[in-house]
This record gives sequence, structure tokens and C-alpha cells, in this order.
Amino acid sequence: MISQAAVYRGDKTFTLEQKDVPDPGPGEVQIKVAYCGICGTDLHIYLGHMDKRVGFERTIGHEMSGTISALGSGVDALAVGQRIVVRPLDHCGVCPACRAGHEHICHNLTFIGIDSEGAFQEYWNVPAHTVHVLPEELDLAHAALIEPLAVACHDVERAKVAPGEDVLVIGGGPIGLLVALVARHAGGNVTISEISENRLAYAERLGFATINPKTSDAVERVNHLTGSKGADVVFEVSGSQPGVDLMTAAAATRGRVVMVAIHASKPNVDMFQFFWRELELFGARVYRPEDYDQAMRLLAEGVVDCGSFITDIRPLSDIQSAFEALTQNPSAIKSMIKIAGNEK
Amino acid sequence: MISQAAVYRGDKTFTLEQKDVPDPGPGEVQIKVAYCGICGTDLHIYLGHMDKRVGFERTIGHEMSGTISALGSGVDALAVGQRIVVRPLDHCGVCPACRAGHEHICHNLTFIGIDSEGAFQEYWNVPAHTVHVLPEELDLAHAALIEPLAVACHDVERAKVAPGEDVLVIGGGPIGLLVALVARHAGGNVTISEISENRLAYAERLGFATINPKTSDAVERVNHLTGSKGADVVFEVSGSQPGVDLMTAAAATRGRVVMVAIHASKPNVDMFQFFWRELELFGARVYRPEDYDQAMRLLAEGVVDCGSFITDIRPLSDIQSAFEALTQNPSAIKSMIKIAGNEK
Repeated sequence: MISQAAVYRGDKTFTLEQKDVPDPGPGEVQIKVAYCGICGTDLHIYLGHMDKRVGFERTIGHEMSGTISALGSGVDALAVGQRIVVRPLDHCGVCPACRAGHEHICHNLTFIGIDSEGAFQEYWNVPAHTVHVLPEELDLAHAALIEPLAVACHDVERAKVAPGEDVLVIGGGPIGLLVALVARHAGGNVTISEISENRLAYAERLGFATINPKTSDAVERVNHLTGSKGADVVFEVSGSQPGVDLMTAAAATRGRVVMVAIHASKPNVDMFQFFWRELELFGARVYRPEDYDQAMRLLAEGVVDCGSFITDIRPLSDIQSAFEALTQNPSAIKSMIKIAGNEK
Repeated sequence: MISQAAVYRGDKTFTLEQKDVPDPGPGEVQIKVAYCGICGTDLHIYLGHMDKRVGFERTIGHEMSGTISALGSGVDALAVGQRIVVRPLDHCGVCPACRAGHEHICHNLTFIGIDSEGAFQEYWNVPAHTVHVLPEELDLAHAALIEPLAVACHDVERAKVAPGEDVLVIGGGPIGLLVALVARHAGGNVTISEISENRLAYAERLGFATINPKTSDAVERVNHLTGSKGADVVFEVSGSQPGVDLMTAAAATRGRVVMVAIHASKPNVDMFQFFWRELELFGARVYRPEDYDQAMRLLAEGVVDCGSFITDIRPLSDIQSAFEALTQNPSAIKSMIKIAGNEK
């Protein structure tokens, strides 16, 4: 099958090429990709930060939706024509993490679309076990938000946010906003801390209390909003030293902090506060199958205002300009690439 | 009641003085103190690190055992002559921590023996709610170990150590050793990392696997001991940057780290590992009433070899030399002061 594909060639460059996609192998399905969003990780790849891992001949992309176009042998539970999303994780099944039931953080995890071929192409073969069938009511463009929404579902599940709890989300980018929406759906009183005024304005339009720590005392504001108690749950999504400082300073006694961000260097962390107030910290990475199920439910319930969340949709032929635009517009929320025909 | 008391006068100096201890007030009991151990915090006070908090006219001491000598009005559940230990925490009852059921980390906590008068004296008045009555079989000298043992019980409870889990204790001082003993009693396979050869030798006599990270690769050794999995539970009791480095490097995927140590400065913490392997961190401070109950049970069961754990017992008149000796003998485990007559 000849497939139009974007190939990352290094140096902030995608080329559009014709790839020959083979028939799906045993246990695989072939997807006709409909939409694929641009993830922060995709931006890192584009900017050359992950060249060693990705190389210079990969088609990336993983925030996708599509339709099953062919089935490999032994795939009995799926059917051609089904509208689906892919949970882009392939685990080894034998490492200590897999054996302990934590397949999503397998020691030998293949992240499909980073470590193997991804969804910025027309036709795409994936293991059948990664496929989730969409409910009827979900639009394919909106369904491409399920992957980042599943990240947020996993983060909120790690924190076990309970109704009435005060929640602080540090960082109001796409993942921070989705975490805020899912935490609010779980009953939390959510405040977002963010330094971009555009993102703050969007967070306020979504009905969240906001803090700009550049222009106000964030801890004082959290205390004001929480009856001097502090936040019961804090999501650190900023990946910054000020974010790490705020996560301990703004947490309530016995507060739960969820580490969502990737900290490439080791920040200074106020371990005394962890001891003194018995704070708790939970790392959270990607998602489990049930997080995908929940993300599909929440999207179908309208928890995300997809219309405003998706900043723009461009055709695959414009992928280069889409990445260029995104690096120049840090207040964009979600840019999406339309791969194939605009089926519902 | 005239009471012989040691008073901290600053500058590494205790004076022995006659204090007039009043009758116990409403809701108080008067204790005839039998034994009082020297805690690491007492050493910090002696060394002048806590002068601002403690002042220069305080009788300190909180790792104690004794006998009830008088009851204040309204104390109906206790009786003169009962052998007891005191859980030296007095909480406010109205702060957010107390209202959430975390009285032991009350925002206005009075630590009795640090923030108020302590047990290095013959007669001592304390709130009745702090008193735990000893089981018959416990010796009063041994019972003075209940307070640090309750710390260890609380730490292990925070980690929820399960039978068969691999446990790493970083730091083999008195608290680290007690944590190791309680974790082993909970079914853990416990390894102690420590840099003092004397302490390592004692840990080995107690039957623990040991690591000296100064002379071997601690992470490699943990992996060797855990089938390359890492430690399911790590207790950071060292208060050092190398300890903080080891706690993330040696933890298994989804491993639980308990922050027992006091980190006065903010260490660099490998937050990427928390994210990548979904590590969890739990601050742990002092104890709850049930930790005292468990510590009394474990001590009565013989979980601690009190004979070897108590390095020396000196009379109150020798308290100055006891502190001096302890600062010169970092491999001592527990030094104890005998306050009053050697009743069983």
C-alpha cells in the first residue's frame, strides 16, 4: 500500500514521501489515519532534542484517530471500518515492571511514533492490542485528543482527587489544561498557575481560578483560595525550578504532589517540607488501558471544549509550516494535522 | 515537689538543678521518670543548633519511661503506680492538619521535651492524653526505646512494607537500624547502606545485608540483591546528598521512598526518575498513637535486641559526660540516662 508520509530528516525538517506500507502482519491491524495532533514531544523531536533516539528517517506522530483498513491474521476482535484510536505503547511482557503489572512503564517500552513508525502518514500498521474502538458519538478530529486526555486521566488517577479537594495545576499548557479539566470533573476545586497571559486568559475562559506567579505571590494566593490550608493535590506540569519550589510551598499538610513534567536536570527539592508536613509525591507517566477508556468517556461527555482546544487543523502537506508556526506561537493549545479524508 | 533536673544552658552545657515541680494540673499526670535516652535531636540541641527554638533554661529529653506518681483532676483512666511511656506530642486540635486527622503533624505542635519541659528530671508533668501504659513484661530501661521505635513503626507504616518486598535503608544510625528491624518484622528483605564500619558491623550482627557506598557500587549491589529489579521500598535516613541520589537510583519501578531524614538544605533530586519509573515518595514524621501501641508490642516480642542496642546507661548526674562521650563516639547506638531508682 503506497502511503503519503511525513519523514523527520533532522534539522527542523520534515519531508513528504511515498512509503510502501506492507500488509498488516499477524496480530497487527492497518489503520487509515484521519487526524494526528502535534505533541510537545513531537516538538522536541522537531527541534532536534531527541535525534539520538529517533534518528533521521522516522515518521513520528501518536496523538491520532483513524479507521481500520485491514486486519492481520489472528485479529478476531476488530473489524475493517471501525473508527479507532491507538494507545501507542508496546511492552516486552517479561521485565520486572511488566511482571509487576506496570506494563505502561515497561523497562523496554517501545513508544510507537517515537521509537517506531508513527501516525503522520496515511496508512499505519500497529499491534492490535494497542487499538481502542471509538464510541459512535465521537468525531475523529476530536478523538485525536484522546491520547493527551488519557495522560491527564492517568495523572488524576495517580493523585486520587476526591470531590471538594483543592487542586493546584502548575503549568497551563495542553497537558496542564487537560489535567485541570479532568481534576475538576473528579470534583476538585482547581486553580492553574501559569506565566503566559494568553494561556491564563484561556484557563479563565474555561472557568478556572488562575495565578500568574510572575506578578503575584502564588503561595499567598493558594492559601487565600484554600482557607490557609494549601492545595490537597498539586500537579507539577511546568518542568521548572520555580514550579518545583511552588509544589512544596503550596501543598497542604499530607498533600499529594504528582510529578507530570519531565525534569531533564535535577531540581533542588525542599525535602524538609516532605518530612515536616508528610507530603507525598507520585510520578506519573503515560497511561494504562483504563485511562484510555476514561478519556473516551470524558471526551464523549463534553468535558473538553474541543472547538476552542484545537487551535488549528492543517493538511499533512502543511506539516512543516504547522511545526514552524507552533514554535513561534507558545500560546497555541493543540495543533492538529489532518491526514486523510474528513470522515466523521 | 523538689525534682533533680538537667537544664540546658547553651554552649554544650547542662547544669544539674533542683526544680520545684508543681502538682499536676487538671488533665495532667505527674511522672517519676525512670530512664531517658539521648535522641539525635537532643544532640543537636546540645551542639547549639536549636538554641533559638529551645532557649537556655530548658530541661530537654523525650525518649523516656517512668511511673505515674500523681494524677491531676479529671484523669480517671490512669492510676498512680502505673508504668508508662509518654508520646511527647501536644497538638492544637483546630489547625487544618488536626482537623484532617493528622494531629501528629499539627501546625502548632508542641514537641514535649523540645518546645516544653522534658524528661531529663526526676518528676515531670505531662498531659494525660500523651501517656501509654506499659505491658507487664517490659523492663523500664528497655521501654525508653519505645519512642524511637515508634518513629520506625510510623516510617514502615507509611511505606506499607509487604512480606517478601526488597527494602533498602539508607543510613544505619539508631533510627535506620530500628526501621530495618521493623521492616524485617513486616516481612521485608532488608539491606542497610551505611558508611561507618562500626555501624555496618553491628548491622551485620543483627543479620542484615549491608552496603558501604564508599567502598562499593551501591546501585549495582542493590540490583544484585534484588534480581536487577531494585528496592521496592527505600528509607532515606541519611540526610545527605549521596543518600538522596541513591534513593532514586536504587528504587524499583513504582518503588516507594520514605523521607525519614531531615534535610536542612534542599538536595538535588532526580525528578526524572520519579516521572519515568513512577516512583512514589512519602514524608514521615514522628508517630501516631497506634505507632506507640505497635512499638510496645514489638519491643515485648523481642524484635529489638535491647541489650546490644543500648550502648551505655549513666546516671543523671553524669548527663554532661554522656553527651560529651556521644559526640566523640559516632558508632554508639543508644546512650541512656537513668533518672530515678532502678524499678523494674
